Amino acid sequence: MTSMESSIQQNCNDQPSVIVTITGAAGRIAYSLIPLVLNGKIFGDHCGIHLRLLDIPEAENKLWGVRMEIEDSCYPLLRTLVSTTNPRDAFQACDVAILIGGFPRLPGMERKDLLIKNAQSIRLQAIALNEFGNPNAKVLVVANPANTNCLVAIKSAPKIPPQNFTCLTRLDQERLRGFCAKKLSASLNRTVFSHEVHKLYILGNHSTTQVAYIGTGEVIQANKSPVKVEDFISEEEYNEVLHKVQNRGAEIIKALQLSSALSAAEAIVSHLKDWIGPEIPQYPFSMGIYSDGNVYGVPENVVYSLPCMRSNNSSGYTVLRGLCFNENIQTLMKITADELINERNQVEDYIL
Amino acid sequence: MTSMESSIQQNCNDQPSVIVTITGAAGRIAYSLIPLVLNGKIFGDHCGIHLRLLDIPEAENKLWGVRMEIEDSCYPLLRTLVSTTNPRDAFQACDVAILIGGFPRLPGMERKDLLIKNAQSIRLQAIALNEFGNPNAKVLVVANPANTNCLVAIKSAPKIPPQNFTCLTRLDQERLRGFCAKKLSASLNRTVFSHEVHKLYILGNHSTTQVAYIGTGEVIQANKSPVKVEDFISEEEYNEVLHKVQNRGAEIIKALQLSSALSAAEAIVSHLKDWIGPEIPQYPFSMGIYSDGNVYGVPENVVYSLPCMRSNNSSGYTVLRGLCFNENIQTLMKITADELINERNQVEDYIL
Repeated sequence: MTSMESSIQQNCNDQPSVIVTITGAAGRIAYSLIPLVLNGKIFGDHCGIHLRLLDIPEAENKLWGVRMEIEDSCYPLLRTLVSTTNPRDAFQACDVAILIGGFPRLPGMERKDLLIKNAQSIRLQAIALNEFGNPNAKVLVVANPANTNCLVAIKSAPKIPPQNFTCLTRLDQERLRGFCAKKLSASLNRTVFSHEVHKLYILGNHSTTQVAYIGTGEVIQANKSPVKVEDFISEEEYNEVLHKVQNRGAEIIKALQLSSALSAAEAIVSHLKDWIGPEIPQYPFSMGIYSDGNVYGVPENVVYSLPCMRSNNSSGYTVLRGLCFNENIQTLMKITADELINERNQVEDYIL
Repeated sequence: MTSMESSIQQNCNDQPSVIVTITGAAGRIAYSLIPLVLNGKIFGDHCGIHLRLLDIPEAENKLWGVRMEIEDSCYPLLRTLVSTTNPRDAFQACDVAILIGGFPRLPGMERKDLLIKNAQSIRLQAIALNEFGNPNAKVLVVANPANTNCLVAIKSAPKIPPQNFTCLTRLDQERLRGFCAKKLSASLNRTVFSHEVHKLYILGNHSTTQVAYIGTGEVIQANKSPVKVEDFISEEEYNEVLHKVQNRGAEIIKALQLSSALSAAEAIVSHLKDWIGPEIPQYPFSMGIYSDGNVYGVPENVVYSLPCMRSNNSSGYTVLRGLCFNENIQTLMKITADELINERNQVEDYIL
């Protein structure tokens, strides 16, 4: 293993800065994410970034290529840059960890094999984070299966509170906003932009059992009264939208011959910006969070996506309470919860 | 050819907006560039973007995949989105054209074959721009060979003034800043960030004959006196830095197994931001520009990289005058000029 310390060193102690660790850093999502982080899209234009990039030894050359491109971009916010295959160097004093590194599903591989292979990988990352990182670190798990990987990370890093770990379901939420905007543009006979559709959430597992919740959805446009999403989307249309959201990833792979990276990176930025960025977000947002079993009937000890709001507490969020889920949604929420329990059972060796 | 009109339509006529056309839009540089454009990095946080994406019919599926990812990112600045294989639809009313689409050099291909193949491709793009675009459009040519492609574009779009066309040499400039920062950090025994090194320029062709000019270079750090770059970089070190800049692209390909995309996209953003963005840049910057033969002995009728400053004139820039190039630089400037004349001769059928 090699550690590639940068000649770039911190010289701005009087300015705020954050140590950000990205794993799977030689991969395509990181390649889309890094410029956004270094352009201040998460932590703002005045927060320096100490960037720590980790990947496996097999990706060391590629990681070096990414590092050279970062150096060639003269980012004013970049304070120090470490690119390494050594988890210790990558997680040293880490404030924010974005865990993207994982194994893709290969032809002939069972879902259980994938779960276990990725549980092993995430466990190693989380153990290093636990040992060397900031005990108040905030962690976003992106590597799939994201929810169960996040649970493995929580159990592997006992020094860090479980509430500091989240997993990415934001890309699903953004896709849901887009599909609803299209439906609403047709129904309302005027343009509704996806960024004008708010309060739509993803519930449960980041998988094909995920639940799209639109009951609180609103279109909010300048100089117009808010429109309730549900008033203009029939049950049949809802089922169509839900199906589209669940299968959007596969649709993109089919067209691009590659999985989503650009939109995944943007979703990571939105997730982290809303959760821990300098501005308080205007609307609640979906995150996969650790369930203590006390809200919306979600079983305890799984990582489940729920609508969250920014909070001043140490975890940075609270669950948005008071939603009334109809019977259909409750049934779907149970199905996705059962899937998560099943996934948890399959990785039980890694969550002791 | 298919045109994929978006359901997204402009509804913000009271806000400033710009029609931006990107060619080669299914490629890797565009994939890195699009998020930066839509995050306001060029035109600022208050300028809406009408995005027009063009690629060849063979890339239609990939382009559709990129389009889906843009839709899934809910960019507030995005007003309309067209992804198409039809140049007419792509260049309709275009204000800013970023011409990335070109052919890569394949094994066994002579440089002359590449020049001609790309001249053909750029010519088609520029003819469509000339016919359908805004006659005051600003054009950035990125596709290689960028300088000669830019000349072909100028000659193929006579309705648009030659001074509205530039080609990208900014990536070379940023690499130069990075290498000088490393040298200066060692010489000064303190950290010099690449973004603190200013007034370094690229002269001539975006090729291995390019000239790195550091004679005006300065390190500008808060609370410190400016440092002249040349005082701390010996002639031998300069030659080493020049060689590194000239060969950085190949070095990255070797590590990444792919050409630069992230850093190319950042350089495109810096180029356009300094040239036509809402803020006046603090320092001059390198751009490949059309030479009328009246400055620094550069032959007329080639596109040659020179230090430029923002200006209120219709082209948006003036050449930074008054630099004194020593004999060595003058010799190198002549070599790169001769290469450009030679390239021009090879594409003479496309610049009639």
